[in-house]
Amino acid sequence: MTTRAAERPDRAQTAADRPSAPDAPPAQALRSRHLLGISGLEADEITLILDTAVAMKEIGGRAIKKVPTLRGRTVVNLFFEPSTRTRTSFEIAEKRLSADTLSIATATSSVTKGETLVDTVRNLEAMSPDMIVLRHSSSGAPELLARMCQSTIINAGDGMHEHPTQALLDAFTMREHKGRLRGLKVAIVGDLMHSRVLRSNVQLLKTMGADVWACGPATLIPPGLERLGAHPTTSVDAAVDGADVVMLLRIQNERMHGHFIPSVREYFALFGMTSERVRRAKADAIVMHPGPMNRGVEIDSEVADAPYSVILEQVANGVAVRMAVLYLLSGRDEGVSE
Amino acid sequence: MTTRAAERPDRAQTAADRPSAPDAPPAQALRSRHLLGISGLEADEITLILDTAVAMKEIGGRAIKKVPTLRGRTVVNLFFEPSTRTRTSFEIAEKRLSADTLSIATATSSVTKGETLVDTVRNLEAMSPDMIVLRHSSSGAPELLARMCQSTIINAGDGMHEHPTQALLDAFTMREHKGRLRGLKVAIVGDLMHSRVLRSNVQLLKTMGADVWACGPATLIPPGLERLGAHPTTSVDAAVDGADVVMLLRIQNERMHGHFIPSVREYFALFGMTSERVRRAKADAIVMHPGPMNRGVEIDSEVADAPYSVILEQVANGVAVRMAVLYLLSGRDEGVSE
Amino acid sequence: MTTRAAERPDRAQTAADRPSAPDAPPAQALRSRHLLGISGLEADEITLILDTAVAMKEIGGRAIKKVPTLRGRTVVNLFFEPSTRTRTSFEIAEKRLSADTLSIATATSSVTKGETLVDTVRNLEAMSPDMIVLRHSSSGAPELLARMCQSTIINAGDGMHEHPTQALLDAFTMREHKGRLRGLKVAIVGDLMHSRVLRSNVQLLKTMGADVWACGPATLIPPGLERLGAHPTTSVDAAVDGADVVMLLRIQNERMHGHFIPSVREYFALFGMTSERVRRAKADAIVMHPGPMNRGVEIDSEVADAPYSVILEQVANGVAVRMAVLYLLSGRDEGVSE
Repeated sequence: MTTRAAERPDRAQTAADRPSAPDAPPAQALRSRHLLGISGLEADEITLILDTAVAMKEIGGRAIKKVPTLRGRTVVNLFFEPSTRTRTSFEIAEKRLSADTLSIATATSSVTKGETLVDTVRNLEAMSPDMIVLRHSSSGAPELLARMCQSTIINAGDGMHEHPTQALLDAFTMREHKGRLRGLKVAIVGDLMHSRVLRSNVQLLKTMGADVWACGPATLIPPGLERLGAHPTTSVDAAVDGADVVMLLRIQNERMHGHFIPSVREYFALFGMTSERVRRAKADAIVMHPGPMNRGVEIDSEVADAPYSVILEQVANGVAVRMAVLYLLSGRDEGVSE
Repeated sequence: MTTRAAERPDRAQTAADRPSAPDAPPAQALRSRHLLGISGLEADEITLILDTAVAMKEIGGRAIKKVPTLRGRTVVNLFFEPSTRTRTSFEIAEKRLSADTLSIATATSSVTKGETLVDTVRNLEAMSPDMIVLRHSSSGAPELLARMCQSTIINAGDGMHEHPTQALLDAFTMREHKGRLRGLKVAIVGDLMHSRVLRSNVQLLKTMGADVWACGPATLIPPGLERLGAHPTTSVDAAVDGADVVMLLRIQNERMHGHFIPSVREYFALFGMTSERVRRAKADAIVMHPGPMNRGVEIDSEVADAPYSVILEQVANGVAVRMAVLYLLSGRDEGVSE
Repeated sequence: MTTRAAERPDRAQTAADRPSAPDAPPAQALRSRHLLGISGLEADEITLILDTAVAMKEIGGRAIKKVPTLRGRTVVNLFFEPSTRTRTSFEIAEKRLSADTLSIATATSSVTKGETLVDTVRNLEAMSPDMIVLRHSSSGAPELLARMCQSTIINAGDGMHEHPTQALLDAFTMREHKGRLRGLKVAIVGDLMHSRVLRSNVQLLKTMGADVWACGPATLIPPGLERLGAHPTTSVDAAVDGADVVMLLRIQNERMHGHFIPSVREYFALFGMTSERVRRAKADAIVMHPGPMNRGVEIDSEVADAPYSVILEQVANGVAVRMAVLYLLSGRDEGVSE
């Protein structure tokens, strides 16, 4: 994979900055005006987002972390599920691009007055926001809105379906450490069934040519994982063995005492990521977690705080990747189709 | 009614933009420094707000929807009742005018610590916000604060009393479609008793010379409606017959199963706005609703989504009208009295 | 105490503005990059903050209350306890300095998902905010975070420990009225045991040479007050007699019906600040309260609204003092130690 100089959103690009003779014509823009999931993206689009995020990350390292790219644009963050991390990350990304932001959380929403989701969003849209960042507990809510609304919709997590910006920031972090995605062995361990992070990651990693192993309790392995190209397994050792990347998934508290997992202690004994288990991976393997972590459940504290843990880098990269997505979706050409 | 070119808040006006010889001297400013209700406004002030909103709406159509008019001014949105729509509309209006905004909702307020409303607002005011946008469940709360505080108070809905910016955006939408307000027949159907939207609309429409019919179940017709100049009726047919505008009012969920209305089904059968009922209005009639809608209760989905429905235009116009109000109240002359 | 011209954050300072030959070399910067409490501050640092706040207050009096000092800096307000007043005051201060602000309240936080405080803040920090303003119910939470994080931490109240910006704004208000702090008699009356406002005020006032009397029910006098240099007493008359400043502390509702205080009526009879009691203080004494007030419990309404009450001035000064703290902590030199 050729790493091309990303577009600089804040200044005119000089000819010298541009790639002179790329092997394949790179994507210059995203083909959709929404980001509903990874499933709609092709490899060159994913590369475009990751390359753009490189330039965005540089902005985050400046003393004045602000560019006027989205000045006068309004972005509404519409969160029907609580989230500190994702909402904060989007808000910071939006503010670094000088957008006007507006955050609406469930509790204060008209949804409590019996209005339908479509009516709520149509009403928001009538106020002409340029983009709506949507988190919703129903899989498919972003697609529904994209069909009915004029605003650009960015999926910030929908039910058990997709969480595309999480997969993009994960890929960004892997590429930054490994220099590539193609050919990497990535082991994803945890609650596979209920994880939108898994679904988006498997699709992105397969599109980019990585080898994905998905490991969890048999009760939490969803049917159809193989069709997406992942190797399902209940053996942590098989998944982690020789891996370049070990990614843990959060075990939701509400699953822990049910019929999925007998007990926290048993889960940790069988699947919890310990230093000993990490030793089976490659010597230069990295450990990732989308957060928030349950220390002592899916991840040992020693692993979470180890030098090979890139968990906080993921968070930092999330802002850069979301800036890239916001930028690319805002500056679309006229020829771009829905 | 002569439509005059509104003041352009963001640039110097050329002589050619100005009305050369208006029939009557138009209002150049609002007489009060607060907007507590429609009841305090005269016809020329209402016209000034609507004309100013025309210019504001133009700003909302630009790629960069932002003017520096209120740069460095602080507006506090103090909402003691939940509201997505109105709060969001005000926030977007404030941000388009470059104001610094701050939103405070009940849950996080000192009111839970037993402080009086007056002390809460006096404390806010000590921090020198330029304006306070207040929504409160007690009728008269904005008046109380206006008497005790230095800040400009804008009523964003108080109890069952007034919701002036809603009536102004409704009038703006009617005028945009009909070219005038004088002589229009406006039918307002729904829960008349508990509606601040009704009270503000009746007062505005009567001041501007429209003919207002108010229709609802006998249990929900408040005494005194005739004194305001409206024709109360329990007959939808009589109200809608020949109307230029049909405006539905929301039926609060908490009223539906009480002694006011036997059942949702019965309400819909007797008062729900169906295509058939709309056919009694003028051929070019428009249908309005302040939202959030209860589809299948006060309005049939077919009507809500029909070409003659201007419900989403109302929402869009709300931002422009609130920008106009914020602008006019901020730039007051020294001679203006309280 | 020489009142020096404070640094002007928004423009180049001319030589004439600078103090030419101060008696003692004044602090040019704060020694820590955090503000965790008053206990870490020396007298010259307190004076630097108060002097800087004088310039900040001037900004608050302008028509355009905004300077570009913190443009492009991100400040996160992380509030684990509800607070209108303090959060609003910080937000307004941040916006007047042109910072990008982000407010996170408990209800929407990942803390509800079982994440540790340290992980929550580390995650926030990974997004590179320049400062975190923290309110937390655990004494010592800000110190813990300052040790583990890169961001500048400002304590906005931690448990029963400290509330340094409150003490600074109180001192600013006293100095503005009395011209000095040294030698003032300050009577603090109320729930001494549970008050972080008391702890911060006693330390600040003793550092600056004031004489502090602390008065409350015997059940609410904490051990160790004398070690901090305050005179504990259960006699309001002894505390108020000849005082320059009378400061009331809020009685938390949850203490009123417990074993600390027999009843609200009895508390008011014994300790409530009435006009009669204020008469024992100096003729030009001022009355203060950190808010929110319980009128008729710790303070009579007549006293709260009297000309000698500076309670609303405290609120106004809070914005200026917080602007000063944000400014001084943002512009730190390389040589400044942690």
